[in-house]
Amino acid sequence: MVKLIALYKKPADTAEFDEKYFGEHLPLSAKMPGLLKAEVSRITGAPMGEPGFYLMAELYFEDMDALNAAMSSPEGKAAAKNLMSFAKDVTSMMFAEVEKVPAQV
Amino acid sequence: MVKLIALYKKPADTAEFDEKYFGEHLPLSAKMPGLLKAEVSRITGAPMGEPGFYLMAELYFEDMDALNAAMSSPEGKAAAKNLMSFAKDVTSMMFAEVEKVPAQV
Repeated sequence: MVKLIALYKKPADTAEFDEKYFGEHLPLSAKMPGLLKAEVSRITGAPMGEPGFYLMAELYFEDMDALNAAMSSPEGKAAAKNLMSFAKDVTSMMFAEVEKVPAQV
Repeated sequence: MVKLIALYKKPADTAEFDEKYFGEHLPLSAKMPGLLKAEVSRITGAPMGEPGFYLMAELYFEDMDALNAAMSSPEGKAAAKNLMSFAKDVTSMMFAEVEKVPAQV
């Protein structure tokens, strides 16, 4: 399984960001074809110093072909266009392969 | 539910890092009391430019009390000490609250 990880730095106006993110962007992202699971996490702190980010979203897909197809789909393009309209300066994205973890976890 | 997110920048020697991370650190981390779930992801790329990180680990706990107790436990301290022995310069950690996502996802 693979995932698209979006990391968001703290925006200037967190209330406005939250309204657009949860009210517009996340519902649009949820329509992407092939999306298996989504998890959004609000960063609350760090063991040492200030956390580098404000929010993280993880969108899971079967494999990179499915992820790429989702990003290239009309739904994926609509979600990306929406995101760029309010979060361009605070967003960074990465692709990741979910690894097997030890059986005792 | 909350999680401890560890982000690792690309180490100088990835083979040595992987050996110590997967061979030593992850098994130690798996012993932390209260750990509900762990997910380790290998960063494989980015939609634009180079990804900022090499690896991400997410350790899930019921709440912040459980997470703090885990980090303060002998098992948590052993895992942290081990990590600092080989990954101090590439590691950043954050706490996060897992948000509800829209029902259609």
